[in-house]
Amino acid sequence: MFVPPDLADFALELARLARRETLPRFAAGVEASDKGGREFDPVTEADREAERAMREAIAARFPDHGIRGEEFGDRPGDSRWSWSLDPVDGTRSFICGLPSWVTLIALLDQGRPVLGVIDAPVLNETNLGHDKTARVGDQPASTSGCVRLADARLSTTDPCMFGGADASGFDAVRRAAKVARYGLDGYAYARLAAGRLDLVIENQLKPHDYNALIPVIRASGGHIGDWRGGEDFGSGAVVAAASRALYDEAVALLRSA
Amino acid sequence: MFVPPDLADFALELARLARRETLPRFAAGVEASDKGGREFDPVTEADREAERAMREAIAARFPDHGIRGEEFGDRPGDSRWSWSLDPVDGTRSFICGLPSWVTLIALLDQGRPVLGVIDAPVLNETNLGHDKTARVGDQPASTSGCVRLADARLSTTDPCMFGGADASGFDAVRRAAKVARYGLDGYAYARLAAGRLDLVIENQLKPHDYNALIPVIRASGGHIGDWRGGEDFGSGAVVAAASRALYDEAVALLRSA
Repeated sequence: MFVPPDLADFALELARLARRETLPRFAAGVEASDKGGREFDPVTEADREAERAMREAIAARFPDHGIRGEEFGDRPGDSRWSWSLDPVDGTRSFICGLPSWVTLIALLDQGRPVLGVIDAPVLNETNLGHDKTARVGDQPASTSGCVRLADARLSTTDPCMFGGADASGFDAVRRAAKVARYGLDGYAYARLAAGRLDLVIENQLKPHDYNALIPVIRASGGHIGDWRGGEDFGSGAVVAAASRALYDEAVALLRSA
Repeated sequence: MFVPPDLADFALELARLARRETLPRFAAGVEASDKGGREFDPVTEADREAERAMREAIAARFPDHGIRGEEFGDRPGDSRWSWSLDPVDGTRSFICGLPSWVTLIALLDQGRPVLGVIDAPVLNETNLGHDKTARVGDQPASTSGCVRLADARLSTTDPCMFGGADASGFDAVRRAAKVARYGLDGYAYARLAAGRLDLVIENQLKPHDYNALIPVIRASGGHIGDWRGGEDFGSGAVVAAASRALYDEAVALLRSA
């Protein structure tokens, strides 16, 4: 697997284009939200306009590439390459004026994600992962290497979202972990790739949610799979860990519940 | 109630002194955590050194002022004025490399908090509140004015932390609110004061946790009280809202559970 450098540069350029649309609308939310008058929806506008800007750039530069976006659906291409776009992952954080929302960009090679960008515009942090390259900005990134759940810093977006056996499985992992934090959406995976979190457990993810995460986690030395020890990401149930050993320990506990 | 301008300026100076101690240790955490070898505890160091720096500055400038700090206990003073310090509120976020931890500084007049600073160093956001003055940096701050729970953006630090009737009460509010986000500690109140969140519900807060919040929320036009409609902050159970009407609606639901 080898991602051409011009495609990696282009992925970062897409993130910059998205920022131009998202950041001003995030800042505008400060004045506009819940002040009465007509409904103003900065997050929907940011989502739509950022995806539009990225789609236009792809169509202009690589007209044969396919595009799968959250807002405007799929555009099949004739190339082996296609792009998966989620302009604002973490819309609830965006709505609440919190800095952790991200833009997710993935490059797929015949449908398999081979490059990911997790860009946190407010924090000015851009995580890139492909092949053996993992960076945050211009600094190399790697996971913590944590191998024991008892040492692990755990995150999930919403602990109230799990139902039934998923809830008891997650609860068992949460109690065994060192510390847990919530509400981060895709940013949690960026922190994992940078060595600051050790374990992320989520379900109900869609392809535009997880495509970019996979290459970022793998390139940084982590392991990402489903809740059963395999790689059925289509299940929407994802476990990402700083090491294979930590992944295995978490999955064993999830399944035992 | 009137806070002398030199004391307001001095409170902001304390926040700057704290940043010098906390920010480098937060950044250092990136390399040092869970990499094996001897235990390195950047958050404990940051907490201790930031409090030490603030205490030294207070003792030098206002030797008669009392100090209540999280790390080094109480130093009674002969003045009407005293300071309440929490150098790192949100230690779990600090440990997980997340930007939302804050430094909390309160000025108390005969034991009543009359000025608060909520400083988020990583985000470079400083909320100040006293008398009718509410600011984020040099911008005026005010709550959203939201008056209905159905429109409210809710936050609490850890929804798994509530037990018994508190858990069912919080759950009722969470289901009635528009959206909920977690994990923010004192930063949630800063976002409330800036109009980006509408409601924060917590319990088990200690004086160094809530002293700074009270003036910040009041100055920005919000209401802060306990879970029973009163102002028994010593209970550790706090509800802060963008308006009195929203506070009342939330408290009624908390009590009905």
